[in-house]
Amino acid sequence: MAATGGRSEPPRLPECGCSYVVARPVYSELAFQQQHERRLPESRTLRERLARSCSCSRKRALRVVKTLLPILEWLPKYRVKEWLLCDIVSGVSTGLVGTLQGPFPVVSLMVGSVVLTMAPDENFVISSSNGTALNSTTIDFAARDAARVLIASTLTLLVGILQLIFGSLQIGFIVRYLADPLIGGFTTAAAFQVFVSQLKIVLNVSTKNYNGVLSIIYTLVETFQNAGNTNLADLIAGLLTIIICMAVKELNDRFKHKIPIPIPIEVIVTIIAAAISYGVDLEKNYNAGIVKSIPRGFLPPVLPSSNLFSEMLASSFSIAVVAYAIAVSVGKVYAIKYDYTIDGNQEFIAFGISNIFSGFFSCFVATTALSRTAVQETTGGKTQIAGIISAGIVLIAIVALGKLLEPLQKSVLAAVVIANLKGMFMQVCDVPRLWRQSKTDAIIWVFTCVMSIILGLDLGLLAGLIFGLLTVVLRVQFPSWNGLGSIPTTDIYKNTKNYKNIEEPEGVKILRFSSPIFYGNVDGFKKCIKSTVGFDATRVHNKRLQALKKIQKLIKKGQLRATKNGIISDAGSSNKAFEPDEDVEDPEELDIPTKEIEIQVDWNSELPVKVNVPKVPINSLVLDCGAVSFLDIVGVRSLRMIVKEFQRIDVNVYFASLQDHLIEKLEQCGFFDENIRKDMLFLTVHDAILYLQNQVKSREIQDSILETIALIQEGKDPLELIEAELTEEEFDVQDEAMRRLAS
Amino acid sequence: MAATGGRSEPPRLPECGCSYVVARPVYSELAFQQQHERRLPESRTLRERLARSCSCSRKRALRVVKTLLPILEWLPKYRVKEWLLCDIVSGVSTGLVGTLQGPFPVVSLMVGSVVLTMAPDENFVISSSNGTALNSTTIDFAARDAARVLIASTLTLLVGILQLIFGSLQIGFIVRYLADPLIGGFTTAAAFQVFVSQLKIVLNVSTKNYNGVLSIIYTLVETFQNAGNTNLADLIAGLLTIIICMAVKELNDRFKHKIPIPIPIEVIVTIIAAAISYGVDLEKNYNAGIVKSIPRGFLPPVLPSSNLFSEMLASSFSIAVVAYAIAVSVGKVYAIKYDYTIDGNQEFIAFGISNIFSGFFSCFVATTALSRTAVQETTGGKTQIAGIISAGIVLIAIVALGKLLEPLQKSVLAAVVIANLKGMFMQVCDVPRLWRQSKTDAIIWVFTCVMSIILGLDLGLLAGLIFGLLTVVLRVQFPSWNGLGSIPTTDIYKNTKNYKNIEEPEGVKILRFSSPIFYGNVDGFKKCIKSTVGFDATRVHNKRLQALKKIQKLIKKGQLRATKNGIISDAGSSNKAFEPDEDVEDPEELDIPTKEIEIQVDWNSELPVKVNVPKVPINSLVLDCGAVSFLDIVGVRSLRMIVKEFQRIDVNVYFASLQDHLIEKLEQCGFFDENIRKDMLFLTVHDAILYLQNQVKSREIQDSILETIALIQEGKDPLELIEAELTEEEFDVQDEAMRRLAS
Repeated sequence: MAATGGRSEPPRLPECGCSYVVARPVYSELAFQQQHERRLPESRTLRERLARSCSCSRKRALRVVKTLLPILEWLPKYRVKEWLLCDIVSGVSTGLVGTLQGPFPVVSLMVGSVVLTMAPDENFVISSSNGTALNSTTIDFAARDAARVLIASTLTLLVGILQLIFGSLQIGFIVRYLADPLIGGFTTAAAFQVFVSQLKIVLNVSTKNYNGVLSIIYTLVETFQNAGNTNLADLIAGLLTIIICMAVKELNDRFKHKIPIPIPIEVIVTIIAAAISYGVDLEKNYNAGIVKSIPRGFLPPVLPSSNLFSEMLASSFSIAVVAYAIAVSVGKVYAIKYDYTIDGNQEFIAFGISNIFSGFFSCFVATTALSRTAVQETTGGKTQIAGIISAGIVLIAIVALGKLLEPLQKSVLAAVVIANLKGMFMQVCDVPRLWRQSKTDAIIWVFTCVMSIILGLDLGLLAGLIFGLLTVVLRVQFPSWNGLGSIPTTDIYKNTKNYKNIEEPEGVKILRFSSPIFYGNVDGFKKCIKSTVGFDATRVHNKRLQALKKIQKLIKKGQLRATKNGIISDAGSSNKAFEPDEDVEDPEELDIPTKEIEIQVDWNSELPVKVNVPKVPINSLVLDCGAVSFLDIVGVRSLRMIVKEFQRIDVNVYFASLQDHLIEKLEQCGFFDENIRKDMLFLTVHDAILYLQNQVKSREIQDSILETIALIQEGKDPLELIEAELTEEEFDVQDEAMRRLAS
Repeated sequence: MAATGGRSEPPRLPECGCSYVVARPVYSELAFQQQHERRLPESRTLRERLARSCSCSRKRALRVVKTLLPILEWLPKYRVKEWLLCDIVSGVSTGLVGTLQGPFPVVSLMVGSVVLTMAPDENFVISSSNGTALNSTTIDFAARDAARVLIASTLTLLVGILQLIFGSLQIGFIVRYLADPLIGGFTTAAAFQVFVSQLKIVLNVSTKNYNGVLSIIYTLVETFQNAGNTNLADLIAGLLTIIICMAVKELNDRFKHKIPIPIPIEVIVTIIAAAISYGVDLEKNYNAGIVKSIPRGFLPPVLPSSNLFSEMLASSFSIAVVAYAIAVSVGKVYAIKYDYTIDGNQEFIAFGISNIFSGFFSCFVATTALSRTAVQETTGGKTQIAGIISAGIVLIAIVALGKLLEPLQKSVLAAVVIANLKGMFMQVCDVPRLWRQSKTDAIIWVFTCVMSIILGLDLGLLAGLIFGLLTVVLRVQFPSWNGLGSIPTTDIYKNTKNYKNIEEPEGVKILRFSSPIFYGNVDGFKKCIKSTVGFDATRVHNKRLQALKKIQKLIKKGQLRATKNGIISDAGSSNKAFEPDEDVEDPEELDIPTKEIEIQVDWNSELPVKVNVPKVPINSLVLDCGAVSFLDIVGVRSLRMIVKEFQRIDVNVYFASLQDHLIEKLEQCGFFDENIRKDMLFLTVHDAILYLQNQVKSREIQDSILETIALIQEGKDPLELIEAELTEEEFDVQDEAMRRLAS
């Protein structure tokens, strides 16, 4: 129909003005592969593969060394004249920014939350004056800070070890799962956590240290409950700082094209506030909370305590991944700009080694700050030399400037942090747009954010990650599927519901299933098939067995006769209702092999027994597997079972558009046998349909031949009879039959 | 080429003997949808959907009530005459089996492990006689058992609540993720756990109660270390029981067709062992561990303690899911056999309510035992009446028979359990076959098994579940992809590597990507494209900008001239190397809009500057999206970026075979604009290729027209010149150009 329609009705031409003419054989997969000489891919054995990947040469060794120590690559090529000046300028600028403006990093917060959880203030109470007012407890600050530094450095070491392991195992790809919506929700939750922790300081109230689920909410509630105890000096200083910082930042943003560099308002506010606090002696006069003492100099190397490892494993996992993800995503921005590539696993190893080393020197987990990277780039930095110089500047600042900040109010510092959170919170505005574009992505955003607030950042990230992966599985599991029909005069098959001029080939159902078939969705796949064909193959089979059993009983009783052409009822059709229709009849008893009975039943005609056997209006089912990207063993087993179930009720199942690697999978899993043959696979749906239509035609011709022979045997001239009765089309068929008979 | 080849070379016919002839217009998605009157699906608003699903009618209400209380459905239809006798016979048999043979259920074990973890013996030590020997501690058994019953019943309540929640939220589908390999690995690990716990009892040695990671291994090691302290009477009784039970079970299995019912060896052994123990007084004479006291009667309802909930949440989650999964999988076997359907969520609700109720009566978590279900079915049970009767039998047995078993050795009971584990352990033999068929599935099996042993059953199941889902994500993430070429004289496009007679259309690359495009694999997708086309679009663009900048400099210096037809070097080609090729040049400075320069550069010719601009050998990229089953927002954004990057370097990107719902997704996410138009989408790859070939032809004609005009303007007769020079094909093109010019 589709194949010949093109001749009778010349197609209208679309804009492009060209037409599509194809004449080729109908291909089953097998015929196609044979005719076009499919080459099988050479499969290497495990041994060959090992030999290949472990082979060693001098060049290869050098490349490995350079991968591990990239400085060997770039330092010998350093162009002193061109680059050194740039690097110095850039290094100094970056160092100054790094000293003056401490941009808020997510990782600091995550480390902080671990430290606070594992070494809360309560653990270091020396004396408590019958503590009803929380302010009256005395805390051993020295012991507390020592414990906290130990925890932070142990965490750094563990993060380093994990990163090194990740890098060595080449699982840098893990970062791919940190999708944009997930990162958005997570950082917003992190901002909320920071906000709550800093709000406490601005109000200068203490709260209990809450742990675990919902701790941040409890802290927030208690902070507001205790808000009455606030120190007015701290609160006013904090609020002023927030207002000033946010206003100036707004101006910076609005006039960014007119002013050469943004006003470093944080630095200005900090210096002024420190000066005021020193001048008025806020601590003594107003009991304000000030920074008090900043340790100078450097701590000697300390062995981190490895027995803390088990407590902080989950957190350090999150931190390791997040720190790495931030660094790589910033790196990628510049890699694209400057046309180089980032080796994700090399980065992992670099961070790992650096953190392991830092862990022994009471250092903090290392990551990347986007703002400082931007400064280094815009001021013209060329190589890592700029990084070394900026580190030197920070070093000098730490040694020299610490003393000056000691009178500063803590609430001012906290307020500076809060003022910098605006951008993070503004991410919430993305959600409505996201919802319009993709509901799933919006849900990932909200879920990750809510979970990170409820469970804490580490478990929240993990929950978000798993949820994100689940949505992928769900999207695969609830795939779109539809029954297809053909667009007349073309080889195109489309969703029957979507088009007006669409027709379903007679006796054939076509089903397209747009997803992998695996353990998670085989049930759904079976349901799709059932609802496309309109009946349940197993149920049809059981009912037929039931009916057969009853027919057999009737034959034994002599009320029916089985002949070659079917069953003849001796008792007439009025006697049908011999037995009640038991729906719950035991199929065990029905287990009579149909071949022994040798009854030919036309299941679509009216049956002589009163069993409600569903009608099967089709003889073939074509599964369009063009969008099936993989199969697992459960999927293959289910497919096999489906084919068998349909074959039992005389419906053939054909597969179209299977990809080559899926055919291999089917072979491996023992899909094929004498009933499920490889010639059931067709190249396209249209190939399968043409094949089926041809089959029908062949059968018609065969029937005609038999009829003609019968007529001749009866002594009649078949042609006379035929010509009188047949329509033109029927005549064509008959005619061909005669010709075949003659040859 | 493919379109016209059919005419010149008649195709050979394959076995099926039919051929494939199609003549239709070349369709872009847009043209096709217009011509064939695509119907848009009616999208209901949230409100309408709510109204629809919340609408209420008497019939509907009745259906809901019957769903909640299925007894209203079946009891009024009960056929007393036919079914009652069957139900009584079946109920009595099932009750007897249930009493005599306690088949090993996974759920009991999981509950037991929670109970032992939360209320270990150590918590109930009254006096310990300077305990070096573990046997000398005295335990407050009454308190211990009371605590354990409380824990078990609280667990039952919590499991019930979870199941009710799952059922109400309609997440019965969660069970689909319990794939066959996962269940196999999990039950084998469970069998191992049971084995270790029972081995301890057979040897009559005590061990510490280990918790958490690897506890089962520690227990096993300590059991063997203490094996010297074993009680010989218990050990011998245990070993004998194991040997006898396994031997008789083997016989049962071998002669199952010859003996009417299997020998209930467990019952026989138990009775004999109890008799011997009572007769010889094993407890006094040999210090054997006996059952001692079985409480009779029933406990009054007790309020479970809800403050244990948080401790047992993870375990009860696993138990809720596993108990349900077992029940549903057994149910499905019979649903298929008797042709009814199981409503997964109704089952969840039923288990939930039953467990919540039981929780208040010191009961155990309910699930299904396959063996007893089989007994009920084979003995002819028809309805739930049989279940009530069998429950009555068990009730009588509990009240009457408990006393008789008090002298039984515990080691005999443990040995009976061990003897029943054989089948579970035999599952290990599945693994090699699984490995041959599907490596991923084999790895899921092993991973779940190992994790369940290391982490314990609850966390192990969770780990296996997540790992299984991860493999799905990984299979989606590392999809197969390949460059396509056309099979001459057909409309078929196949992997270029797999076929001998395959050709790639000139200037076009075709890429097929067989998986969804989402956040997890966009990087991989970009890499696929890069490696298919052979260059990096961004890099080409950056290099071109670099070259342009240099050319502009040269033009300023007067060493080059920009004309309409390109760039003319005044200084000759020898002067090319004015500047070094800086690879790390700052693209910021290159940010010169190309339109301002208005230089036409033929990038594939040799450039007058020494910048290494990669050649772009193609003008079009066709992405075959037939196997892309979904897109997320990250995927759409990446696709958009890819199209833009290629358009910048004058390569057009076309999409073929996109499914309808993906086109909608693209629209929702704002994929299209004035440069990315909907007519870039084609119905099939062949449509796109035909369109492109036609475009090339049109351009040739246009060029010819211009050339002809130029000739005419120069006063020459174009035809004379042309005919002398052109090949036949070129002449055809020229001829058509002339005709168009004339019209």
